[in-house]
Amino acid sequence: MARRRMIYEGKAKILYEGPEPDTLIQYFKDDATAFNAQKHAVIEGKGVLNNRLSEHFMSGLNAIGVPTHFIRRLNMREQLVRMVEIIPLEVVVRNFAAGSMAKRLGIDEGTALPRPIIEFYLKDDALGDPLVTEEHVIAFGWASQQDVDDMVALALRVNDFVSGVMYGVGIRLVDFKIEIGRVFEGDFQRLIVADEISPDSCRLWDIETNQKLDKDVFRHDIGSLTDAYTEVATRLGVMPRNGNKVSGPKLVQ
Amino acid sequence: MARRRMIYEGKAKILYEGPEPDTLIQYFKDDATAFNAQKHAVIEGKGVLNNRLSEHFMSGLNAIGVPTHFIRRLNMREQLVRMVEIIPLEVVVRNFAAGSMAKRLGIDEGTALPRPIIEFYLKDDALGDPLVTEEHVIAFGWASQQDVDDMVALALRVNDFVSGVMYGVGIRLVDFKIEIGRVFEGDFQRLIVADEISPDSCRLWDIETNQKLDKDVFRHDIGSLTDAYTEVATRLGVMPRNGNKVSGPKLVQ
Repeated sequence: MARRRMIYEGKAKILYEGPEPDTLIQYFKDDATAFNAQKHAVIEGKGVLNNRLSEHFMSGLNAIGVPTHFIRRLNMREQLVRMVEIIPLEVVVRNFAAGSMAKRLGIDEGTALPRPIIEFYLKDDALGDPLVTEEHVIAFGWASQQDVDDMVALALRVNDFVSGVMYGVGIRLVDFKIEIGRVFEGDFQRLIVADEISPDSCRLWDIETNQKLDKDVFRHDIGSLTDAYTEVATRLGVMPRNGNKVSGPKLVQ
Repeated sequence: MARRRMIYEGKAKILYEGPEPDTLIQYFKDDATAFNAQKHAVIEGKGVLNNRLSEHFMSGLNAIGVPTHFIRRLNMREQLVRMVEIIPLEVVVRNFAAGSMAKRLGIDEGTALPRPIIEFYLKDDALGDPLVTEEHVIAFGWASQQDVDDMVALALRVNDFVSGVMYGVGIRLVDFKIEIGRVFEGDFQRLIVADEISPDSCRLWDIETNQKLDKDVFRHDIGSLTDAYTEVATRLGVMPRNGNKVSGPKLVQ
C-alpha cells in the first residue's frame, strides 16, 4: 500500500493505481472542507463512514441497473472502482431549496420544488465552481448534448433511488451532487456514476424534525459531524447502533 | 402628455398608457445605470439616441419577420409599442466572451466563442439578476419549455440580423440582451421581442480597433457615452454626422 502510485489527491479522497487494468483504489480521507476549502478540519472516522455509505448507495444503484464506478469495498477506507474519464462538472439534483440555490434565487430554505431541478457546476476551484448552463457545457465542449441528456437521466434515477432508500429510514433527500465519468467499452462509450454518494455530497434532513444529518453540520458548526453521519449509517443498517464494531476493526481508527 | 397614465418606470425608460388598445408609449430617459444601479448618471441626449437606434433595429427585425413590440416612433424620445406580458428573464446572446461570463468562466475578454451562447438571467434587482438555467426557468414557471425554445429561436434570429447590420458598418456585436413578451391573438399567444435594442443593451466593438461603443464606456469610465452612441448612430445613418439636426428639433433637448 505504501508504495503504490497515487493518481490524484482531492480534498476528501485519494485515488491510487488499482490492482487490475482500468481500476483505481479510492481512499476516503478524514478531511472535511467547505466554502471552496476556505474551511477545513480533520474529523476522525468520517472517511470510514463515507466509504461504507458510498458502498451502500453505489451497490444499490448497480443492482437496479444504474451504472456506477463502484466494484467492491476493500477495507475500512478503500474501495475498488472503475477508472473513468471524469466529466468536469458537478451534477446537482435538488428536491427542496437549500444552500446556494435558495440564496441565489431568493427562495426560503426547505421550500419543496415543483419538480427535481438539475444543475451543472463547473469543477474549477479557482473560479469557485460556478453554475453553468447547458449552453455553456455544450459550447465549451465539457460534454456533448448526448452526454447532457445521459447525465440528466442518470441523475434523475440516482435521485429516485437514493430518495427511496432515505425515505425508508425517515430521512429527506434535500439535494445531492454526483460526478459522472466516461468509460470505453470496445467502440462504445457510456457514462457512469463516479466519485461518491455520502453525507458529504448530499443534504439529508430528518423528515420529522428537519435535523440536518449532512455536511451542513460542519459548514455551519451545528453539532458533531461524526454523530450525524453515524446516525445516517446506523439507520441504514450500514453500521451497528453501538458504532464501534464493523467487521473486526474498530470504527474509528 | 402631462396627464397620461404612467404604467411603469424603469431605470432607463418609462411606459405610459398608449392611445390605442393594447399599446403603450415607451419613453427613453437620459438616465444611465450600471452594476445593478449602484452607478448612476444622467447623460444628456442618450434617450434620444436610444429611441432612434432601437427604432432602427426593431423596424429592421419587423421587416424580416422577427416580431417585435415596435409600432412606430412618435417623437424624439417616444415610440408606440405593443403591450406585452413581459417574461421575467433577460435573454443574453454572446458571440465573444465579455463581462460577467468572461469573469465567471475565467475566459479572456474578447475570446471568440465556439458558437453563440444564450443565457437567461432572472429579472430581479434585489437578487442582482442571477444567471438561471432552463431547469430553473421551467421548474419555477417563469416560462414553459415551448417558450424557452421560442425565445432561443428569436434570440438567434436577432443575433444574426443585428450582427449583420453592425458588420456592415465595421462594428462587432459582442453580445446583447433582449427582453421578450407574450401577446395574445385570439386563442393563440406568441412571443415577440420587447424592451429595446440599443448600445445600452449590447456590447459593440469597432472591428478594427476594438474601441468600445456601448454602455461599457459608462460602466468603466472610458470616455464619452454620447460620443460612442453618436458614432454608432451616424455609422448606421440614423443620425447625420453633425449630430444636431434630426427632422427638425435639436438632438439634445
